[in-house]
Amino acid sequence: MTVTAPQGFRASGITAGLKASGKPDLALIVNDGPSKAAAAVFTTNRVAAAPVHWSRQVVSDGRVDAVILNSGGANACTGPQGFQNTHATAEKTAEVLGVSATDVLVCSTGLIGEQLPMDKILPGVEAAASELSVDGGAAAASAIMTTDTVPKAALFIGTDSNGTEFTIGGIAKGAGMLAPGLATMLVVLTTDADVAPELLDVVLRDATRVTFGRADSDGCMSTNDTVVLMASGASGAVPSADELGEGLTAVCAELARKLIGDAEGASHDIAIRTFNAASEADAEIVSRAVARSNLFKAAIFGKDPNWGRVLSAVGTTDAVFDPDQLNVAMNGVQICRNGSIGDDRSLVDLEPREVHVDIDLQAGDAEATIWTNDLTHDYVHENSAYSS
Amino acid sequence: MTVTAPQGFRASGITAGLKASGKPDLALIVNDGPSKAAAAVFTTNRVAAAPVHWSRQVVSDGRVDAVILNSGGANACTGPQGFQNTHATAEKTAEVLGVSATDVLVCSTGLIGEQLPMDKILPGVEAAASELSVDGGAAAASAIMTTDTVPKAALFIGTDSNGTEFTIGGIAKGAGMLAPGLATMLVVLTTDADVAPELLDVVLRDATRVTFGRADSDGCMSTNDTVVLMASGASGAVPSADELGEGLTAVCAELARKLIGDAEGASHDIAIRTFNAASEADAEIVSRAVARSNLFKAAIFGKDPNWGRVLSAVGTTDAVFDPDQLNVAMNGVQICRNGSIGDDRSLVDLEPREVHVDIDLQAGDAEATIWTNDLTHDYVHENSAYSS
Repeated sequence: MTVTAPQGFRASGITAGLKASGKPDLALIVNDGPSKAAAAVFTTNRVAAAPVHWSRQVVSDGRVDAVILNSGGANACTGPQGFQNTHATAEKTAEVLGVSATDVLVCSTGLIGEQLPMDKILPGVEAAASELSVDGGAAAASAIMTTDTVPKAALFIGTDSNGTEFTIGGIAKGAGMLAPGLATMLVVLTTDADVAPELLDVVLRDATRVTFGRADSDGCMSTNDTVVLMASGASGAVPSADELGEGLTAVCAELARKLIGDAEGASHDIAIRTFNAASEADAEIVSRAVARSNLFKAAIFGKDPNWGRVLSAVGTTDAVFDPDQLNVAMNGVQICRNGSIGDDRSLVDLEPREVHVDIDLQAGDAEATIWTNDLTHDYVHENSAYSS
Repeated sequence: MTVTAPQGFRASGITAGLKASGKPDLALIVNDGPSKAAAAVFTTNRVAAAPVHWSRQVVSDGRVDAVILNSGGANACTGPQGFQNTHATAEKTAEVLGVSATDVLVCSTGLIGEQLPMDKILPGVEAAASELSVDGGAAAASAIMTTDTVPKAALFIGTDSNGTEFTIGGIAKGAGMLAPGLATMLVVLTTDADVAPELLDVVLRDATRVTFGRADSDGCMSTNDTVVLMASGASGAVPSADELGEGLTAVCAELARKLIGDAEGASHDIAIRTFNAASEADAEIVSRAVARSNLFKAAIFGKDPNWGRVLSAVGTTDAVFDPDQLNVAMNGVQICRNGSIGDDRSLVDLEPREVHVDIDLQAGDAEATIWTNDLTHDYVHENSAYSS
């Protein structure tokens, strides 16, 4: 699995010295083609990092030859100097690879508001290029970690209508500031399918909307969110939008699930499914309102099936529903029926890490699920004791 | 101070036995006139408690004779039985006072989703009526406390254009689920001014909008928020809208500040002021986005002046600003200048409980301040260990 599982890609992950811990902090992923088609989605945060501004331009022509990613510094809110540093990183990467800097995507993650140490990054780029390998995906996945405790990767193998096999691989990082507007944190996806950039773009937006777009760990949107998809065409497979979309959505969903599963300080992963909604938008709004309720999230940490906090969050939305028709189940127990007291709340078992909250609006037939985490002492500790 | 400071009011606070702790849990406040003019604002949460549904009807004709308030149970999400219990409480209060039940406002606060023990409430109403006194305001303020650690009261003395003195008194409770849409938690305001209900309503909405409406401790909106204002006319003073509004806003601001100062588990009270905004609405949206960032709130708990988390929250809004023109000061130190690194963040002293964050949008001349709290271990503990 990971980004080097598809044919036509090499990757590496090395230690440039950006992290005080001495752990790997620089990753390079190269598309050797024959196609260099690519698409990407970025944070909708208006305070976007320098590498996001740069990379939006890079991908705008549908071609990306390589992605250089660093942890240990977000390069956000760093002014003109920050943009120059991103540009210099792309130039250096282009130089050592023999490609154009305008085809090099740059991603950064770490503390906001500090300049990157370019005296470490530029030699690091040379080291990363010298380590490139068709087995380097796992090293790249490790080098982009920040507060993540495990590297995250996913794989999908499909076939086009001619029976030609294609592969999709992906890596992701992200454990906090994890409520993407459109994309989330840093994700690199690769495929050896032969797909035009325009189709990649459509399929990527569809897949991220219902996967990363519905992971909402702490309601905080990053300045650096980037999801990039590169297609080498090396397999010769030419999947349709549906064939590619199915695989891409599966890979994105798996990575999003892994992000939630490793969120800072979390002790529960919570799937908040709203169903029988008048529209998918309504279902998403309702689930997200619950996902952003600190009181609900603290209750789940305390293994308290406090459905009153679910309803008080639902009631803040403008979705179509009658307050006297709301049903809520938690891990299968119908604790709220028609807006009032249902089955005994003591029947709910909140020991397992995975929690399912099902909210029935009785207003239609649409549904959506938002994944979130509980609010724990460890979340407060991680985010108060350390700058990140 | 408190609600019995103005002439024409009696109050009491007694123990009906709703709280396991045995602390006072039932308050009664009576307007003896000569005027019974009143106005009220309620939660905008669509999942509203039974007493909110009842009280909206009571105040709709501009007359309130008495307010009966219980802690120890919110009577929210309790279905038809819950509404019948509110009705029975109002009927009992009306009976012992010799007034009409349709002029008795009812407020409840406590756990959502449990029926009130009416066998304790109804005898409690009789006991509360027998304890009514012109010195009973402080007892009432104590009886409405839930997780509050101190009772909250405020007082204002003004004069009308004829030089006649009038008094405004108020009490409030609320320590969690503290992000009112329009009103907040339970607040009773009294005045001996002679004011028509229509004017009371206008002045009350104006005052709450810029006070309770801008207290946002934890982003969670209650099902029971109620602010009621009663005017007895006993002073003979007839203040103008401006004269009354000035005093009422001062009392509401003081009570709102006290709510934030006693919020569950908080170790810092944070004033987030956005200025040089294109509109007051923009300023409020920006301040509220920062107030709802768990990462920002955890950083303040950790005494970390993490301005990157301020900017990443500002960037999620659609307010008018240029990301490269944002300035942020924390306790007077300009740590972010023109969207990038400003003065040394180590100069910021976050030891004091009160923190001031000043966000300059450089986009106009409007401003607004949202008061919030930090996110602490104690907040998580209080809201995970106990149902409330």
